[in-house]
Amino acid sequence: MTQRFQFNLKARDGRARLGEILTSRGTIRTPAFMPVGTVATVKAMFPDTVRECGADIILGNTYHLMLRPGDERVQKLGGLHEFMRWPGPILTDSGGFQVMSLAQLRKITEEGVSFQSHIDGSRHMLTPERSIEVQTRLGANIQMQFDECTPFPATHDEAKASMELSLRWAERSQKAFAEMAGAHQALFGIVQGSIFPDLREISAQNLVALDFPGYSIGGLAVGEGQEMMLETLGITTPMLPENKPRYLMGVGTPLDIVEAVALGVDMFDCVMPTRSGRHGQAFTWSGKVNLRNAVHADDPAPLDETSGCPAATQYSRAYLHHLFRSGEFLGPMLLSWANTYFYQDLMARMREAIAEGHFAEFSDKIRSIYPPQAEKTPS
Amino acid sequence: MTQRFQFNLKARDGRARLGEILTSRGTIRTPAFMPVGTVATVKAMFPDTVRECGADIILGNTYHLMLRPGDERVQKLGGLHEFMRWPGPILTDSGGFQVMSLAQLRKITEEGVSFQSHIDGSRHMLTPERSIEVQTRLGANIQMQFDECTPFPATHDEAKASMELSLRWAERSQKAFAEMAGAHQALFGIVQGSIFPDLREISAQNLVALDFPGYSIGGLAVGEGQEMMLETLGITTPMLPENKPRYLMGVGTPLDIVEAVALGVDMFDCVMPTRSGRHGQAFTWSGKVNLRNAVHADDPAPLDETSGCPAATQYSRAYLHHLFRSGEFLGPMLLSWANTYFYQDLMARMREAIAEGHFAEFSDKIRSIYPPQAEKTPS
Repeated sequence: MTQRFQFNLKARDGRARLGEILTSRGTIRTPAFMPVGTVATVKAMFPDTVRECGADIILGNTYHLMLRPGDERVQKLGGLHEFMRWPGPILTDSGGFQVMSLAQLRKITEEGVSFQSHIDGSRHMLTPERSIEVQTRLGANIQMQFDECTPFPATHDEAKASMELSLRWAERSQKAFAEMAGAHQALFGIVQGSIFPDLREISAQNLVALDFPGYSIGGLAVGEGQEMMLETLGITTPMLPENKPRYLMGVGTPLDIVEAVALGVDMFDCVMPTRSGRHGQAFTWSGKVNLRNAVHADDPAPLDETSGCPAATQYSRAYLHHLFRSGEFLGPMLLSWANTYFYQDLMARMREAIAEGHFAEFSDKIRSIYPPQAEKTPS
Repeated sequence: MTQRFQFNLKARDGRARLGEILTSRGTIRTPAFMPVGTVATVKAMFPDTVRECGADIILGNTYHLMLRPGDERVQKLGGLHEFMRWPGPILTDSGGFQVMSLAQLRKITEEGVSFQSHIDGSRHMLTPERSIEVQTRLGANIQMQFDECTPFPATHDEAKASMELSLRWAERSQKAFAEMAGAHQALFGIVQGSIFPDLREISAQNLVALDFPGYSIGGLAVGEGQEMMLETLGITTPMLPENKPRYLMGVGTPLDIVEAVALGVDMFDCVMPTRSGRHGQAFTWSGKVNLRNAVHADDPAPLDETSGCPAATQYSRAYLHHLFRSGEFLGPMLLSWANTYFYQDLMARMREAIAEGHFAEFSDKIRSIYPPQAEKTPS
């Protein structure tokens, strides 16, 4: 528990970065993809399997966990690592994004967000201080400042007011963190500003002045489209210090991730591999595959014979198709596994490509397997 | 594939029997409990895990599989073993029970049962010949004759007519089996006759005259209650040859199984361990536990620290409770695993007790952990 947080940049290839984050719970190899364990479980997966897929760190959701089972309860049970049997590092979000997308009767004030639980209608208040309290009780190794994720589209005025509120909340989060958190925990600031370069710059400058050990890039992948996301990302990463990790929140497709790494991003999280898996969509090294489609009904071939994942090599497409058509648990279990493995494999190959100086080549390969339109026309 | 079917009786303790069935797919240690893989998957479990729990054989359902994915398709894909990645022996039922409980617009005639699929309303006919065809195509190592599972209650006349129909279907099943099945497959006859000793006797005598390699006892655990089930069982098993295995279909609770073994039954199947597991009910060596109950919300203790199953020892009751309250996949995954392990452990301990001649002692232990009323008042 002596190592709080240290980021080592090990290699560069263009703007893409290879690095590692040392924490008290172990090392996170970057670029890193964090499987999402919303309510203390990466859906339809055993924690050991998540680890075996190559994940160094997972993400937990503050909003969900504070409501159920409750942060005090988790703390009494030994913290989130112990509770869910995940011994490695855990990152928690601030709850700011989900309180706006899931809770009812939300009201934002300078103080924070008051809301009603989507589970039982109970009244709660999330503030920077409360968010840090929850994250500290959960025992997160990497915490997020409380922020408002500016909706898209927003006018310049709206985006400015929202970004400025997040900045004030950043300072309060940092103060609360200094008072509450343990030596094994670290806090990231979150850059906001929607798609406006001047606002991103003000946000970044002010956060950098607060000297966080890492910086998240928020308010993207919220409907602006990939092109605008990458454009904003391209002007934002250079505003952030080289020697701190950069985390693009809630992203994304394999292509999104590769393009973002190309722009200097180090960390990612997304529900896509597990959510897609639960719905019969698989990621493979030949592209996306929709196992619900009738074309697979008689296909004895495995999902992806080039994969190192048993779920992708040991079962036929016909069987996977059958499981999804029949609504059986094993379908989501196998595809969540295969997709989580694919995403970790993608990150591992990306790290190797950066280390060996042929990241551009690797990116081209991903662009050919996962062209932008692939999301709209799954096989 | 040389070994078709051989039953070796290895020891007796009272009426309880220890044995083994040799098949082309491996040995089945008896008394055996067969996890149910209704539609080619033991629900919420990886096949490797089912095996690791100690299961030698699983059961597949003819009715479900003929409708989806279809017996011809499974055959073309290499048979059920290959399709679902279960290399060990598989037993299939005849479809007779489920066509009556699940299908729509059923009509029974001498020929068989015509019905509409519960999935898509398509019209089908199940006859002794069709049932054997399906089971042969699936590649089942142990097949069941097509029968009518006499409903309970039934009058003596109704039970007699039903039992006699099943006898005629037994002969037709045997004839079809002789024409269609492979050398690695075996066919069981099914004793019917409801709760009437004279009808059970007629059924058994006629089936024994047909010389099946094994005998199932059907028409029990259909609402008659445990006492009447055991009474009927007690008079039925002595009507069957000593040197053939006896399979009590669709049974049951741990207590049911122990009592039935005490009466000379060798094989069982039941959805209880996996179905209960999906609903938060766990079987442990201290009795049944309902993980949905609030009493577990803050309990750091594992489900059953005496178990050899990781699902029962490595996660807290508080966590399991949380998973079920949150409707997460991992809850059913863990409890299906823990329960399947418990049932296999129960069988293993029972076999050991018979081998060592203290089965009565072991039965008493189970009666104290799982008293008859335990089913009605889960903790």
